[in-house]
Amino acid sequence: QGTRDHPPASVALRDRLLAAAVACFKRHGAAAIDTPVLELRETLTGKYGEDTKLIYELQDQGGELLALRYDLTVPFARYLAMNKITHMKRYHVAKVYRRDNPATTRGRYREFYQCDFDIAGQFDPMIPDAECLKIVHEILSDLQLGDFLVKVNDRRILNGVFAACGVPESQFIAACSTVDKLDKMPWEDVKKEMVGEKGLSPEAADRIGEYVQLHGGLDLIERLLQDPKLSQNKLAKEGLGDMKLLFEYLTLFGITGKISFDLSLARGLDYYTGVIFEAVLLQQENDHVEEPASVGSVAGGGRYDGLVGMFDPKGRKVPCVGVSIGIERIFSILEQRVKASGQKVRTTETQVLVATPQKHLLAARLKLISELWDAGIKAEMLYKKDPKLLKQLQYCEDTGIPLAAIIGEQELTDGVIKLRDVATREEVRM
Amino acid sequence: QGTRDHPPASVALRDRLLAAAVACFKRHGAAAIDTPVLELRETLTGKYGEDTKLIYELQDQGGELLALRYDLTVPFARYLAMNKITHMKRYHVAKVYRRDNPATTRGRYREFYQCDFDIAGQFDPMIPDAECLKIVHEILSDLQLGDFLVKVNDRRILNGVFAACGVPESQFIAACSTVDKLDKMPWEDVKKEMVGEKGLSPEAADRIGEYVQLHGGLDLIERLLQDPKLSQNKLAKEGLGDMKLLFEYLTLFGITGKISFDLSLARGLDYYTGVIFEAVLLQQENDHVEEPASVGSVAGGGRYDGLVGMFDPKGRKVPCVGVSIGIERIFSILEQRVKASGQKVRTTETQVLVATPQKHLLAARLKLISELWDAGIKAEMLYKKDPKLLKQLQYCEDTGIPLAAIIGEQELTDGVIKLRDVATREEVRM
Repeated sequence: QGTRDHPPASVALRDRLLAAAVACFKRHGAAAIDTPVLELRETLTGKYGEDTKLIYELQDQGGELLALRYDLTVPFARYLAMNKITHMKRYHVAKVYRRDNPATTRGRYREFYQCDFDIAGQFDPMIPDAECLKIVHEILSDLQLGDFLVKVNDRRILNGVFAACGVPESQFIAACSTVDKLDKMPWEDVKKEMVGEKGLSPEAADRIGEYVQLHGGLDLIERLLQDPKLSQNKLAKEGLGDMKLLFEYLTLFGITGKISFDLSLARGLDYYTGVIFEAVLLQQENDHVEEPASVGSVAGGGRYDGLVGMFDPKGRKVPCVGVSIGIERIFSILEQRVKASGQKVRTTETQVLVATPQKHLLAARLKLISELWDAGIKAEMLYKKDPKLLKQLQYCEDTGIPLAAIIGEQELTDGVIKLRDVATREEVRM
Repeated sequence: QGTRDHPPASVALRDRLLAAAVACFKRHGAAAIDTPVLELRETLTGKYGEDTKLIYELQDQGGELLALRYDLTVPFARYLAMNKITHMKRYHVAKVYRRDNPATTRGRYREFYQCDFDIAGQFDPMIPDAECLKIVHEILSDLQLGDFLVKVNDRRILNGVFAACGVPESQFIAACSTVDKLDKMPWEDVKKEMVGEKGLSPEAADRIGEYVQLHGGLDLIERLLQDPKLSQNKLAKEGLGDMKLLFEYLTLFGITGKISFDLSLARGLDYYTGVIFEAVLLQQENDHVEEPASVGSVAGGGRYDGLVGMFDPKGRKVPCVGVSIGIERIFSILEQRVKASGQKVRTTETQVLVATPQKHLLAARLKLISELWDAGIKAEMLYKKDPKLLKQLQYCEDTGIPLAAIIGEQELTDGVIKLRDVATREEVRM
């Protein structure tokens, strides 16, 4: 339940998609690592908040208590701590597992690919963070998914807002997860949840509302830096200062046009400590809508400076920032597009079919195809002793093989083959 | 326990290895599929004989009873049956799981990659089987692992031998698994096990011994076809007839030099029904040894005509033949070679480091690197505002980056960059 087999057409499409992401990661100098699908249960415990219940556990068959990995970030942090690595730029493309309620029609599965790029190490502020956003921009542009927007915020700014609005620190996480719903429901409903379910005072909620509905660019950052309440808060000031620096770097990268500083962005995971971001595709059909509605997140990430330290016996921290490309959602979009276009995806790369027009020529076919394989040419033949020529050509048309190398009695005598272009039916002897 | 993280150097080496195998599979017209790591427990039950106890089971957390896949063959058979596919040429590279006693020094792990190519469908005899052997030959030659030998046998011939030697059918499987040990122990010990542990009569064991120590080529096949006892047995006759055909096809492929018809080859798995084969690397150091000792199996496979039918509600059979490349063992061999050679494996592909020789030039670096990335050039920079030039060049040497694009105040004024060859220290302005 909630998993699926990937037939050849899906694998071919996903391979193209992953190749684009991996090419970008390599362009940015990342190395690949691979970790086991299995992790010790204790490694995953306490990293995912209330989602811990979604972790797949293995039967206790003697030995260690194991679980299937839930994401690639926690295994990466464990890897860094275990190997005492203090700086690394790595990517990792692999499957993760969540015992979630599957919504397979919306592309949500219990087994799915993640595609992560992370930069670990103590560096000058915001340079690696800016690179992560550049990477999101490059990949989404490359894939030609249509217009997109990358929302950026900082956990320190959010926490500063909560503090400035009179929320006690113990309620930060609750407030955070409610704010995160602003992209799906109007402020009035979010306020209702804050007051009704999370126990914030209506006044605090109203004050929060004034901040979290703001979004903009450098101008907004400057304005908030002057804000009498926020500028008093150490965390908020730090976050805003870094956000300003980030936007300066993004300006040099020439990508601020698609970046929005958005105070409503909160992101679910506990481990973020600084910059957070999320890319959404914008609806394209309706140009009259003033504020384009989002069609869902296709990439996300942020800074998590405390996670590696949780795995180090001495608590030594390795600051990290990373991005996860939402490969499954993008795959669903591309798959729908391919379907809509009626275009046929070739699932093999065969260049030539070795064919015979008469009987008793299997030996000739086997000899020829062997030569082609040895020369590195992608070749197939039908696994029949005496197939009809028509059947062989039909196979080419069905599977998209462009050429047929035909060897008949005459060709055998003359020491040549007849190379046929399947589409045009042109033939040359060679 | 029994799993491992793969650092960048391992991933880079494994990627090269897998690329060679996949290139071969594509050359032979195979399409890729992907199946979940999770299977229903009942799918795996009764497919692996006594190794069933090595299957990793998932905790019952409500819902289905799941297990981690043990190989890629059973999931492939399930996939064919579920989707009513009657012919397909597919490859699959993925991890499988066995709760085995890990012997990590000998490259045996609980999580490891398999790399499989299979041909499913009802075809004229031995043509797909011959192609599987051609594939083994191509991949092992490509990887330049040294001299190798592919042992070939047929389950029907083995069963015919047992029958002809007076073994009751109920003891075929037991006899089979003992014969399989002939590559690791002398005949005397194998005989002892047959008589002592498996309960065969000493006379039957002696008769078996006369057959299973034979190996050769077409000549041996011809001789056995005339053998008074074997030629009486229907199964053995069928198997020998097909073996003869197989060797004819392998002769046309020009690869019989590395193929040996070996009656001691039995292979462990229950599901084989016809041709079986196994490739071993031959020891190279000692040329005086008459019979080169094998250093372990690096590929194996065979025909399994009954497996798909086990998953079809009506028991409809789809004959299959396939090969699994022993990627982990080959990886260990190549890794040892790399280590022995002292050669350094680059783990990134970065072409150029963007560097600055003076302070206050971060903006120039960010602008230039952004242009390079957008032009598809693999580029890195240090995540420091004002790094020393020496440190930047040192980073190139450490990580193997061949070029440095240096942009200083003078270059900025002149609108050029200085491109430096890190190894030769040659510089050009451009």
